[in-house]
Amino acid sequence: MTKWVYSFGNGSAEGKAEMKNLLGGKGANLAEMSNLGLPVPPGFTVTTEVCTHYYKNGETYPSSLKADVESALAAVGKIAEGTLGDPARPLLVSVRSGARVSMPGMMDTVLNLGLNPATTEGLARLTGNPRFAYDSYRRFIQMYSNVVLGLEHGAFEEILDQEKEDKGYEHDTELEAEDLKRIADRYKAHVKAELGKPFPDDVNDQLWGAIGAVFGSWQSARAKTYRRMYHIPDDWGTAVNVQAMVFGNRGETSATGVAFTRDPSTGEHLLYGEFLINAQGEDVVAGIRTPQPISKIVRERQGGKKPSMEEALPKTFAELNEIAKTLEAHYRDMQDVEFTVQEGKLFMLQTRSGKRTAQASLKIAVDMEKEGLIDRKAAVSRVEPAALDQLLHPTLDPKAEKEQIAIGLSASPGAATGEVAFTADEAEKLAKDGKDVILVRTETSPEDIHGMHAARGILTARGGMTSHAAVVARGMGRPCVCGASMVKIDLAGGVMTCGSHAVKRGEIITIDGASGQVFKGRVPTLQPELTGDFGTLMGWADSIRRLKIRANADTPNDADVARKFGAEGIGLCRTEHMFFEPDRILAVRQMILADDRYDREAALAKLLPMQRGDFEGIFKVMEGLPVTIRLLDPPLHEFLPQKDEEIAEVAKAAGSTPAKLRARLIALHESNPMLGHRGCRLGITYPEIYEMQARAILEAALNVEEQGGKPVELEIMIPLVGFKAELDMLRDRIAQVAEAVKAERKKSLKYMIGTMIELPRAALRAAEIAQTAEFFSFGTNDLTQTTLGMSRDDAGGFLTDYLSKGIIARDPFVTIDVDGVGDLVRIAAERGRKTRANLKLGICGEHGGDPDSIRFCHDSGLDYVSCSPFRVPIARLSAAQAALTIITKAE
Amino acid sequence: MTKWVYSFGNGSAEGKAEMKNLLGGKGANLAEMSNLGLPVPPGFTVTTEVCTHYYKNGETYPSSLKADVESALAAVGKIAEGTLGDPARPLLVSVRSGARVSMPGMMDTVLNLGLNPATTEGLARLTGNPRFAYDSYRRFIQMYSNVVLGLEHGAFEEILDQEKEDKGYEHDTELEAEDLKRIADRYKAHVKAELGKPFPDDVNDQLWGAIGAVFGSWQSARAKTYRRMYHIPDDWGTAVNVQAMVFGNRGETSATGVAFTRDPSTGEHLLYGEFLINAQGEDVVAGIRTPQPISKIVRERQGGKKPSMEEALPKTFAELNEIAKTLEAHYRDMQDVEFTVQEGKLFMLQTRSGKRTAQASLKIAVDMEKEGLIDRKAAVSRVEPAALDQLLHPTLDPKAEKEQIAIGLSASPGAATGEVAFTADEAEKLAKDGKDVILVRTETSPEDIHGMHAARGILTARGGMTSHAAVVARGMGRPCVCGASMVKIDLAGGVMTCGSHAVKRGEIITIDGASGQVFKGRVPTLQPELTGDFGTLMGWADSIRRLKIRANADTPNDADVARKFGAEGIGLCRTEHMFFEPDRILAVRQMILADDRYDREAALAKLLPMQRGDFEGIFKVMEGLPVTIRLLDPPLHEFLPQKDEEIAEVAKAAGSTPAKLRARLIALHESNPMLGHRGCRLGITYPEIYEMQARAILEAALNVEEQGGKPVELEIMIPLVGFKAELDMLRDRIAQVAEAVKAERKKSLKYMIGTMIELPRAALRAAEIAQTAEFFSFGTNDLTQTTLGMSRDDAGGFLTDYLSKGIIARDPFVTIDVDGVGDLVRIAAERGRKTRANLKLGICGEHGGDPDSIRFCHDSGLDYVSCSPFRVPIARLSAAQAALTIITKAE
Repeated sequence: MTKWVYSFGNGSAEGKAEMKNLLGGKGANLAEMSNLGLPVPPGFTVTTEVCTHYYKNGETYPSSLKADVESALAAVGKIAEGTLGDPARPLLVSVRSGARVSMPGMMDTVLNLGLNPATTEGLARLTGNPRFAYDSYRRFIQMYSNVVLGLEHGAFEEILDQEKEDKGYEHDTELEAEDLKRIADRYKAHVKAELGKPFPDDVNDQLWGAIGAVFGSWQSARAKTYRRMYHIPDDWGTAVNVQAMVFGNRGETSATGVAFTRDPSTGEHLLYGEFLINAQGEDVVAGIRTPQPISKIVRERQGGKKPSMEEALPKTFAELNEIAKTLEAHYRDMQDVEFTVQEGKLFMLQTRSGKRTAQASLKIAVDMEKEGLIDRKAAVSRVEPAALDQLLHPTLDPKAEKEQIAIGLSASPGAATGEVAFTADEAEKLAKDGKDVILVRTETSPEDIHGMHAARGILTARGGMTSHAAVVARGMGRPCVCGASMVKIDLAGGVMTCGSHAVKRGEIITIDGASGQVFKGRVPTLQPELTGDFGTLMGWADSIRRLKIRANADTPNDADVARKFGAEGIGLCRTEHMFFEPDRILAVRQMILADDRYDREAALAKLLPMQRGDFEGIFKVMEGLPVTIRLLDPPLHEFLPQKDEEIAEVAKAAGSTPAKLRARLIALHESNPMLGHRGCRLGITYPEIYEMQARAILEAALNVEEQGGKPVELEIMIPLVGFKAELDMLRDRIAQVAEAVKAERKKSLKYMIGTMIELPRAALRAAEIAQTAEFFSFGTNDLTQTTLGMSRDDAGGFLTDYLSKGIIARDPFVTIDVDGVGDLVRIAAERGRKTRANLKLGICGEHGGDPDSIRFCHDSGLDYVSCSPFRVPIARLSAAQAALTIITKAE
Repeated sequence: MTKWVYSFGNGSAEGKAEMKNLLGGKGANLAEMSNLGLPVPPGFTVTTEVCTHYYKNGETYPSSLKADVESALAAVGKIAEGTLGDPARPLLVSVRSGARVSMPGMMDTVLNLGLNPATTEGLARLTGNPRFAYDSYRRFIQMYSNVVLGLEHGAFEEILDQEKEDKGYEHDTELEAEDLKRIADRYKAHVKAELGKPFPDDVNDQLWGAIGAVFGSWQSARAKTYRRMYHIPDDWGTAVNVQAMVFGNRGETSATGVAFTRDPSTGEHLLYGEFLINAQGEDVVAGIRTPQPISKIVRERQGGKKPSMEEALPKTFAELNEIAKTLEAHYRDMQDVEFTVQEGKLFMLQTRSGKRTAQASLKIAVDMEKEGLIDRKAAVSRVEPAALDQLLHPTLDPKAEKEQIAIGLSASPGAATGEVAFTADEAEKLAKDGKDVILVRTETSPEDIHGMHAARGILTARGGMTSHAAVVARGMGRPCVCGASMVKIDLAGGVMTCGSHAVKRGEIITIDGASGQVFKGRVPTLQPELTGDFGTLMGWADSIRRLKIRANADTPNDADVARKFGAEGIGLCRTEHMFFEPDRILAVRQMILADDRYDREAALAKLLPMQRGDFEGIFKVMEGLPVTIRLLDPPLHEFLPQKDEEIAEVAKAAGSTPAKLRARLIALHESNPMLGHRGCRLGITYPEIYEMQARAILEAALNVEEQGGKPVELEIMIPLVGFKAELDMLRDRIAQVAEAVKAERKKSLKYMIGTMIELPRAALRAAEIAQTAEFFSFGTNDLTQTTLGMSRDDAGGFLTDYLSKGIIARDPFVTIDVDGVGDLVRIAAERGRKTRANLKLGICGEHGGDPDSIRFCHDSGLDYVSCSPFRVPIARLSAAQAALTIITKAE
């Protein structure tokens, strides 16, 4: 029989950390902490399998669940010395969700469950603290009504405010037991009025209602959005954790807080977190009261006046510090814990691997290796490659003139500039219009995720380093400034004020997530410099990876950046980008407008020295590394102007007439240019174009060599090959040019000729194409377009639909479609290598910089990936992780 | 050691018919006839391997060739009682090309080789006929100068005409020996003047010059064109046949002729051909003198005044008739022979399978089966499927008003209408502009082939049934009227006159290849009726083939035609074609312009009864056969007007505004519509469209059934599927509609749901797609576009280049690209059937009507092909031939 419920508490547990799939992250770690002998309030976990069963069986529970829960509850009561619903010894519990992976803020929690008029009275008697009892009761009614019964917060806040006003109180703390009892009654009356039935006094109804709400929230819109964004399967389900309550709101020796075992922003090794005296957990996370730092040094750095936990509760702080060490030693990773101090006694409510910035991630990985906690392989596998993007973000130019208008917490690093949007929808809309956006909110909530995703950066007026905005922004790699309390937002007026400054909707601001500063207007930025831990980790990654990393670079400057980031060659040098330079486009257009080969060659002769110069510059930078140069690829009409006013101008400049230019435009027009006269098809129709390019490449190589440069490994790449005969014909022509150049210069020349594999036919015919091609470079952009029959330019309209309807899990233009496009890559690699065992294989599509796609490339036996220069470090790390068989991911 | 030369003659030979690859068609058959004991002048064949050697080794011969030829020549001399170059007993030879397959008119021939002043004088003495000797000599000089030395005919004709004029002669026959000797001298002087060196008197120089010319002509432009058109590999090479001359120009008991053992136009069993008394072979073929029929009955039918061969040379005719029977019995096929009668003695110079019209091909195959010469399988394999097109060509409406302007020979059946073009280039140009063209020439030559290919029909003023024009036109399936001698062409003036009628370039005429008539203007045509032999052969084909044949049909009328041609179902019913009907397009446009689902459904509700009516009509015609209906496929913008004037009109009619319509047009615009928002992607974005279509289909099926019709096998087909999830989602929606219809009508419903396989991804993921799909239909049009990355609309520009440069052998949109697209079809079939063993597989692209593609479909294990109704017979026959393991092709 399936075991649906797992108990924990009192130094032991039925579950353990490895059972995350079954118990969820929270439940598994509560069990693990219990097994470690840490002070964990007793409780039990209803497994994720119950959730799956629930949705598979028309939202019903397994038949034995009720009995299982009852017996687990009895066990909890035994340890906690109470019984749910017993006014004499009332047991109160929290009910929380807990999925396999942490989904911050997305699932709902109910605290203080088990209170009703009788048990509240009992609690008052038992604790001798009626105020605490009725405060707990009114909190429970409010939370339960919101989370389980679906009522708005606002009405409850209003009742509270009215009561305070009636009494002339300013703070909640002034409310007395009788006030709170009356408020509870008014809350219940409000619920009955809204729902037509009373608030449940039966504690079992309360419990099952809460459990149902947790399962129900698994299918809430915001949970679905989060899962889609983070590629979490719908069928994983969530567990439910029911745990005896402990109270951080039992007076001045009670507290509640969250802590990281290291600083999640910088990685610094100290207890980093926030706490509130006499409060319950949600007060910290929700960002409603601003909490205080845990460590003294952090308080001092921030210039805080109120005491840190280290100062206010030194014994408990020391205990927490010991527990942090125990947990790090046990989990071998930085932990994010929740705790409550009930009348001086510390209870651990949660532990999990802590989310962190890329910078922290790096430092923690490197530090832990040095501390002997983990080895180099583990260190390399701990850093999320995509997060490196954060380190590669530009920073503000310190010399730039800046007008600071606000300051907050440095919640997520990086600088960002953009138009101000005050709602998530607004941010999304502006971003869709191609605008850079800074989302400014008083505080964020899960409903804002789409807007945060669309924004370049996030600024909030309230909340701390562990507030929703901060956690989510770090996870997304978005710069974020939190708790900038001087920021006041007038949503209706469309303006925010920061002291004397006013910024209207759509005006530009700049935020610096590293310093917490907010500036008016656009502030110039600097490229990041990477050293220290970054270099160390990259070095370890390089020693582990098998894949070579190259960059896509079309200019000497690109090539230079690429090398600085560690590129080991150029995997794609697109020659047509050079054609668009203002001083060349005229000759290109003359070439296109030429009436015959003679005129065309005359125009090409003008381009030759320019192209040669381009290549010389690149070859010098690359100093003997391999450089793959792709011959002209796009259809010729891309080089011609399309608008009437330009046509006249260009025609004149090119020594032609508008009529002729228009005629050529019409002749070159294509219904589906993606599938048209481009790539090697141009080389076959106009061989003189490729001949010029081949000459420019070969002469440039000789020139650089003559000037004392290291001879680059030349790889001339023919695009869009579908038939071996195409490649043969062009290979022969290039060989003729090479022979001519050799004879003219009396030098030897070494070069390889290969092809893009970007058509399904080329992949299928790889065996014969490899008879001629010395290397393959998978052009997975076009291969995706042809294999899926999906134009990247046109897919926007339905891809969103496809993603939201779950037809595809990921955008195939971002992460390679392993099943379809990947199948062709594998087929081509296998067939190509059968013909030519040493066939060099690489990838040069956008996928070359995507971690999951890089893993695929590694698994498929490719030799290298090539990506944009800024993604080279990501690729290096991804390649190393791919090479590590077992990856322990930080979660 | 390789044997380079094979001898034949005197009742035996070193070669035989099976050695066609080595000896060429002509050489192999000369050997075979010699082995059969038929009267063949002795000779020898220089093998095709010499040709291959020649081109592989810088145009040089194998070292032993000279000796081999000398010894073979000696053997010929022994039998023919003469020696090449010996004035006392001069041996004369012909030198002819002979490739593996007949390439009519493309390779060159030299006759009377071995003549020089001394041997001519000897020949005169030996034959006692100086006129014959010198006529032969001047003919030899003229032919050799043209074929081997590359001089124009014209100058020689001029010399001849001058001589005739000087003497006051009207006909060549009036020229006497002395005249001819003088003409020969003037010819030689002309050659010397043109080339700067004398015409060769050395007979060995003559022989090797001629052999070299034959090999040289293998690489002539026109030979290459022919090979490209008929997909003959360049490396096959040609053989050279050297054979002792016999003379049809030795007086009134000499003759030369060509004959078919059956009528090549109708298939009638009689000796059909033409001959000329006192002439050499090229006189017949070249069409310069109009020859007479061989059989008396043919002469009578044609109303000829001059005697037939049966009447003029009755004994020889009887002998020829016997030989024809021997040859047919031996080769089991209709033969095309060349013969010469030298002073009453018959010599056979060539035999080969005769080219024939589709009608003749059918009749001969069926007759021969009845005569017991061949079995049914052989009969089925004898008819070229593509040739059936000729039988399916329309004929002229007998009741139509016609203005006949000329009459000629009925050289190739079928009626054709088009604009008159007087040159091949002109014809090609007009055809490229989308015009129907009739190519009108005095006579055609191999240089005209591209124009004949481009033309709908061919009309010539000169030449007989075996003239170049007639042979080529029949091979191409083009209607052709030959020898319409009243037609005079004024090329410079751009006009042809036919008696009192004048037809200018570009004016329209109609030709009837069945009657030989030529009409002014366009004459209405009738659909062909197929009975008799056609039905018999189709019946045999049906009993042999495994593939089912369906048709692509969108209307009841299409369906009706398809069934008459023998279609066993509809493989592709495109629902969008119905949308373009004038009474529907408005509702379609309202649907596209709808602001929301509600408006869209209102527009769709208008379309529902119309679509239902369409399907009812089709289902009634199909009477229980399978019908595959494809749901909406094209992108929506295809249904909207694009021109300003239309936009205003349409907007008004659709109750919208031009601005809104324009906005929708912009929103729907796509860079690559082929890869855009179409197919099932529409069904996913606008599920209500597919729901309406599903309802229309299912309700129509029930309606037809209720009206007593046989329930069709319904196959609902989802286009452009790339992901199983797409199909799942749409399958579920259709199932919901089906459940609703069942409930409303209280009837059961049977239908299958399947998908087009037209994206490489779909082919690769066939295993999982087949979990949902109950059938696959390969949409090879789109699969070709995506696999090759080639837009059919845009490929014109470079495909011609690709074909002419030999990069691809065939247009992949006509004949399936077996290596690339075919590989995906095989992969999909294999993977799909692994999941679902009884998965129904078919093809519905244009390839479904192409014989070679059908063979591929058979070999790949598909269940059926679907093609346009008119190609159904071709498909039936092709499928049968594919099922026959060994195919003996008539050549």
